[in-house]
Amino acid sequence: MPERDLQYLAELAAQLRVDSVRAAAEAGSGHPTSSMSAADLMAVLFACHLRYDFDDPGNPASDHLIFSKGHASPLLYSLFKAAGVISDEELLSFRRRGSRLEGHPTPRLPWVDVATGSLGQGLPVGVGVAMAGRLERLPYRVWVLCGDSEMAEGSIWEAAEHAGCEGLANLTAIVDVNRLGQRGPTRHGWDTGAYARRFGAFGWHTIEIDGHDPGQIDYALNDARNTRRRPTAILAKTRKGEGVLEVENREGAHGKALKDPGKAVNELGGSRSVRIEVHRPEAAAPYRFESNGMKLPSYTVGEKVATRTAYGAALAALGAARGDVVALDGEVADSTKTETFGKKFPERFFEMYIAEQQLVAAAVGLQVRGWKPYAATFAAFLTRAHDFIRMAGVSRASIRLVGSHAGVAIGEDGPSQMGLEDLAMVRAVHGSTVLYPCDANQTAALLAEMADLEGVSYLRTTRGDTPVIYEPGERFPVGGSRVLRHTHGDRATIVAAGVTVHEALAAADELRADGIPVGVIDLYSIKPVDAAALVEAATTTGNLITVEDHRIEGGLGDAVMDAVSELGPRVVKLAVTDLPGSATPQEQLSDARIDRVAIAEAVKRLL
Amino acid sequence: MPERDLQYLAELAAQLRVDSVRAAAEAGSGHPTSSMSAADLMAVLFACHLRYDFDDPGNPASDHLIFSKGHASPLLYSLFKAAGVISDEELLSFRRRGSRLEGHPTPRLPWVDVATGSLGQGLPVGVGVAMAGRLERLPYRVWVLCGDSEMAEGSIWEAAEHAGCEGLANLTAIVDVNRLGQRGPTRHGWDTGAYARRFGAFGWHTIEIDGHDPGQIDYALNDARNTRRRPTAILAKTRKGEGVLEVENREGAHGKALKDPGKAVNELGGSRSVRIEVHRPEAAAPYRFESNGMKLPSYTVGEKVATRTAYGAALAALGAARGDVVALDGEVADSTKTETFGKKFPERFFEMYIAEQQLVAAAVGLQVRGWKPYAATFAAFLTRAHDFIRMAGVSRASIRLVGSHAGVAIGEDGPSQMGLEDLAMVRAVHGSTVLYPCDANQTAALLAEMADLEGVSYLRTTRGDTPVIYEPGERFPVGGSRVLRHTHGDRATIVAAGVTVHEALAAADELRADGIPVGVIDLYSIKPVDAAALVEAATTTGNLITVEDHRIEGGLGDAVMDAVSELGPRVVKLAVTDLPGSATPQEQLSDARIDRVAIAEAVKRLL
Repeated sequence: MPERDLQYLAELAAQLRVDSVRAAAEAGSGHPTSSMSAADLMAVLFACHLRYDFDDPGNPASDHLIFSKGHASPLLYSLFKAAGVISDEELLSFRRRGSRLEGHPTPRLPWVDVATGSLGQGLPVGVGVAMAGRLERLPYRVWVLCGDSEMAEGSIWEAAEHAGCEGLANLTAIVDVNRLGQRGPTRHGWDTGAYARRFGAFGWHTIEIDGHDPGQIDYALNDARNTRRRPTAILAKTRKGEGVLEVENREGAHGKALKDPGKAVNELGGSRSVRIEVHRPEAAAPYRFESNGMKLPSYTVGEKVATRTAYGAALAALGAARGDVVALDGEVADSTKTETFGKKFPERFFEMYIAEQQLVAAAVGLQVRGWKPYAATFAAFLTRAHDFIRMAGVSRASIRLVGSHAGVAIGEDGPSQMGLEDLAMVRAVHGSTVLYPCDANQTAALLAEMADLEGVSYLRTTRGDTPVIYEPGERFPVGGSRVLRHTHGDRATIVAAGVTVHEALAAADELRADGIPVGVIDLYSIKPVDAAALVEAATTTGNLITVEDHRIEGGLGDAVMDAVSELGPRVVKLAVTDLPGSATPQEQLSDARIDRVAIAEAVKRLL
Repeated sequence: MPERDLQYLAELAAQLRVDSVRAAAEAGSGHPTSSMSAADLMAVLFACHLRYDFDDPGNPASDHLIFSKGHASPLLYSLFKAAGVISDEELLSFRRRGSRLEGHPTPRLPWVDVATGSLGQGLPVGVGVAMAGRLERLPYRVWVLCGDSEMAEGSIWEAAEHAGCEGLANLTAIVDVNRLGQRGPTRHGWDTGAYARRFGAFGWHTIEIDGHDPGQIDYALNDARNTRRRPTAILAKTRKGEGVLEVENREGAHGKALKDPGKAVNELGGSRSVRIEVHRPEAAAPYRFESNGMKLPSYTVGEKVATRTAYGAALAALGAARGDVVALDGEVADSTKTETFGKKFPERFFEMYIAEQQLVAAAVGLQVRGWKPYAATFAAFLTRAHDFIRMAGVSRASIRLVGSHAGVAIGEDGPSQMGLEDLAMVRAVHGSTVLYPCDANQTAALLAEMADLEGVSYLRTTRGDTPVIYEPGERFPVGGSRVLRHTHGDRATIVAAGVTVHEALAAADELRADGIPVGVIDLYSIKPVDAAALVEAATTTGNLITVEDHRIEGGLGDAVMDAVSELGPRVVKLAVTDLPGSATPQEQLSDARIDRVAIAEAVKRLL
């Protein structure tokens, strides 16, 4: 590398350090030292290797840069300043109320694909973006800046496994091995070989460098760009707080503004106004999705079909109608029935194996490029990806999750396989939608509704067959509900969803025969919830009985109570409160006291 | 190995297969083929290498065997039958209502340490049991039977990293590489080298064998027992469904009873009555815990102290009083304040680095041996371990979790670091306890209460300083609450916990000055909740306002509504409903509409 370039890069890196120190100093908090260790790495990447169109963040040819170590946000924002897309004034708004420059990056900035800050997530999401690049046959590269501490997260190795085995050569992990975590030394310190051996074992090309030597960095980034059939991990030995004696390579300097920022800026040679001319990508043709008319599967009323089966068939129909629909599986496609899609559209079906964190992260990465991902596994095992679902909410990512084998109704397999906490989990995610159909036609309709929803949406399906009660083609808007039984004399209203709808209907019929008329509402949309219908029912009958195949905390019952709480009806919640064992599905519903008998008894007790 | 032994082992393995087939046939479901692949491995382990005292499952010298591939439960139960601890009749009760032989193993059987069935969990839990063995200086070994599909789970590599770096030579992973997952071939098929390279890179001793050759199995298990300073991974090439043509090494035969079990039993040579004389362990002295009088830290009323600080000090005090208390950290001990304990009791402090799944799994493993683990990280990052917490509930494991940096009150760091879903998550776990203190003395008292709680308990702490409002030494029983403001003329009651208690008190004072007397309840126990106090407040004032620094779904507000739902008061919930950005703590509380101003306004609006 010519001396002139080396000088430029040294000046640029110094400026990035200065600006990181200044931004954190102005905020009085933040992570300047974690930014300073990676400044040289990012200076060389931005100035020499990144292909990015800042004028059009959606340019399909642009590279993607993900700060998996999101706490190094001062560095990212300093890069944006050097690239000329934010002002120095905005840089100094870091961490202030209303600023786009949050403590950790979020997509409030148009050049940030996804929110990071929960460590170990940027690389798995990067895998998803790299998968999209391959699917679209686009030439972009995905660069992920990782910390060394986050290498302890299992999700990093789920990502390493997927990218390594799939040979995602368009993906590069740049690991900032600065030796110091938040509370002290990392497990491997400066042993970059330890990381290289691990990535190497997972099939990656690896290269170990001095992360403060622009020549070595440039060589490594070139090497990554030229490596075929394998992703590359650059293991860069760096010093945390590099360039400022007060903090350089010292413990106890994590996550704090520097004590004497003025002195630090001087030590770094003062403020500069170095600009980066980021290379624009060469133009690339965007991928064209095919679209056709939609023909959802239809089922005859009275037929018995599992909602998971209808999900699989409907997803395949949706895939035929919309070329932007992709499906991801956690190695249970034969159970969730995603295989119906997978057989028809193998190129848009991704087997993620039993790695639920990477499953959800890949969905997040794919939607960065506009794909409509549906990711499915057992509802119980989606809990494995809870933090990824939470962060998808922070990322405003539009992903669709499908959890099968909901509730005790799965029967003999026992509690480890029962999704009993999933409604509570997804309801509490920012901006989420939670749907829980009771029959096959409703499932198909709701699955299609999900395609254009924003944010995290979730569909809960049932293992066993349930009778079809709705005609094909009926519409079920998100946020709606269906009144299935209603007379003017109703003395209570049973609110159910999924498998308990059928129990509620049976209980209502039995109660009617006993001279006790009750209403039944199918609350297929758990969030948003049909507050108007619930308020109406609460006002009319004054008594609500909710019944759900889910733990009593955080599910349908709580959603109903929330909707009617300011009105004050009496609400009785039937839900799973004990620990199930093995038993047949009907025995399970009975033991959990959520079957027709328990519902009828609860109504009688209440009245 | 002498021919006689080989013959015995072959007969034993055949019997295990036969019994696995029979149990699944009787149940009409289950995983016989996944049992058959591992039958030789387990036959040799049980007959030649396991040291176990079936008469006293708590014998400290006994080895521990964990079926990480929990779906191979028919094999485990067949082993128990061969060991003479369950009858053939009980074996055939597999998966029936009321049977101890559930679809996946749970500790309802006294020889099962933990529930498995969610893949990728047995090995991390085994790491915890191995840590306990080292801590207690006991000679036992931990044997974990893993499936090959579950190698895709990141948690396996968190476990590999911890065990490898800590050199847990008492731990052996036996990987049943039968090539076939649930839906088809695994990623690596029979490439045992792929697994060996990965485990090797993480510092394990590895050995690749034919998993149907008793001599090779015996050699490998001996090798594992004799390996020093490193855990051992035995990568055993096997055939799923081994021994029965109908299913052997065939796709589509996962998780089903055999079509023709009678023929299969004949093909396997018919039923046998082979017994295993499992070796008893040599006697070992149990570890003696020291116990002293407890002196919890005390704080002066009016002082401002973060509850996380009080947690750290109280944990250290508890550690001084009780030798059975251990602490685990997710590399944030300086933030959670677990470091206060860590500095005083380094031998009982475990740095798990940023690997929250292994953090919780290690706690589960340690409690198997009677330790009282406290595992702490940011509340937000406990979501990473949701599935492990869920399974700890199924395991009836007594573990204590502490989540710091709860809510928007953390301020500038932004949403990725805010625990806003944790109450919903832990409330929905079977048998859980959820505590949320508002001041330092209360934190200390609750932390001590947790030591003897059964099941999963959770303490939520706050980053910033809050005023001490309780005298030192006051008691706060689990399931209780505190009435902080109450007059006979109260027109509403504000129910709060943690940081919002102080906002509620300020709002109540302001409202009183405006001539609106309101009560305030500190609901420090979110689960179990003090239903009596809430019902009393609801009956007296008819109006409840709940306020919490958590998402509106599944937290304190829902717990309150649940307690009073059959009574029908009006309840207004104040909670986080939007996506926060960066801002100061007070700005965050204000923006989320959960501060004193918002509370006072809500009361006025309600009345």
